[in-house]
Amino acid sequence: MEPLKQRILSEGKILPNAVLKVDGFLNHQLDPQLLDAIGEEFTHRFVGERIDKVLTVEASGIAIAVFTAKALGVKAVFAKKFPASKHFDQGYSAQVISYTKQTTHLIHVDGAYLKPGERVLIVDDFLANGEAAMGLVNLVNQAQAELVGVGIVIEKGFQPGGQRLREAGIHVESLAIIAQMSENSLDFAP
Amino acid sequence: MEPLKQRILSEGKILPNAVLKVDGFLNHQLDPQLLDAIGEEFTHRFVGERIDKVLTVEASGIAIAVFTAKALGVKAVFAKKFPASKHFDQGYSAQVISYTKQTTHLIHVDGAYLKPGERVLIVDDFLANGEAAMGLVNLVNQAQAELVGVGIVIEKGFQPGGQRLREAGIHVESLAIIAQMSENSLDFAP
Repeated sequence: MEPLKQRILSEGKILPNAVLKVDGFLNHQLDPQLLDAIGEEFTHRFVGERIDKVLTVEASGIAIAVFTAKALGVKAVFAKKFPASKHFDQGYSAQVISYTKQTTHLIHVDGAYLKPGERVLIVDDFLANGEAAMGLVNLVNQAQAELVGVGIVIEKGFQPGGQRLREAGIHVESLAIIAQMSENSLDFAP
Repeated sequence: MEPLKQRILSEGKILPNAVLKVDGFLNHQLDPQLLDAIGEEFTHRFVGERIDKVLTVEASGIAIAVFTAKALGVKAVFAKKFPASKHFDQGYSAQVISYTKQTTHLIHVDGAYLKPGERVLIVDDFLANGEAAMGLVNLVNQAQAELVGVGIVIEKGFQPGGQRLREAGIHVESLAIIAQMSENSLDFAP
């Protein structure tokens, strides 16, 4: 997705440990025009699939999910994050490790908003090690919903998440795949 | 705003301590069609004002802010939440007490996304004691930006936040004001 790649190149900031900050349009400040285009692009990438719901995790996934849901004419649901020690009697939970932040937390969705047989598209801002995405897939499975696929805005192609999901047979669509990133350069996969 | 009030009546759940859960369309599952209408309504309520940016706080404010920003043709920024013990050398921070959760946390905006002279509309999902809104107003003031007003989806009119903001001379627009709420009834202010 060319406009997205241009924004990454012009506004992205590369930090140590392969951290890419896109706070100018995706993770802190939000550009509704770009988000609208992202929602349309995901709809295009998964055309022909019946999709009943878009699922993501707070907070950075919310804007992406709701614009994708708008383009698809369905509702979005965001999993909520809790400390790993939290216990739920109801709904669906999964543990997620954040390698960037060196923490583990729990994500949770109320059973009312993810139901058996629903066809679910997962979307998220980044795919690196695939922990968040696999956690969301886990919630979909627990709910006996059907996973349509995973839509990612920025995939770090040099980290194992993409391969992990694709080898699990999951249809992954990433709008920008970064092949290589160093202190002062960033290349996209073709 | 009539469609919003209907959704609150049909889907809202009243819990003890005057907690109103609207997880079906605003705080967990998100309805893009209603959010689109909310964005349009805020634009209408603040018509005639120049607005450069929409500001909110994660996570529940994000979808509201980004649809309002879309309707206004501007960008949205969400303040991030951190533990009260966190220290920032840069940007703008404010302490916020949550009476519902009995906790204090810090909200923070990067200096790059809130600038002197920018005309800012604050939006949020709920207004109860006004802590979150006052924290956001604090950030706007620190940045020497100009506050246009505060747009609230659901105001609890029986709690002091609305009066607190209005007495401070702030233009507050609430799309639904709850006059009274008990275990099995909910009335809107006229």
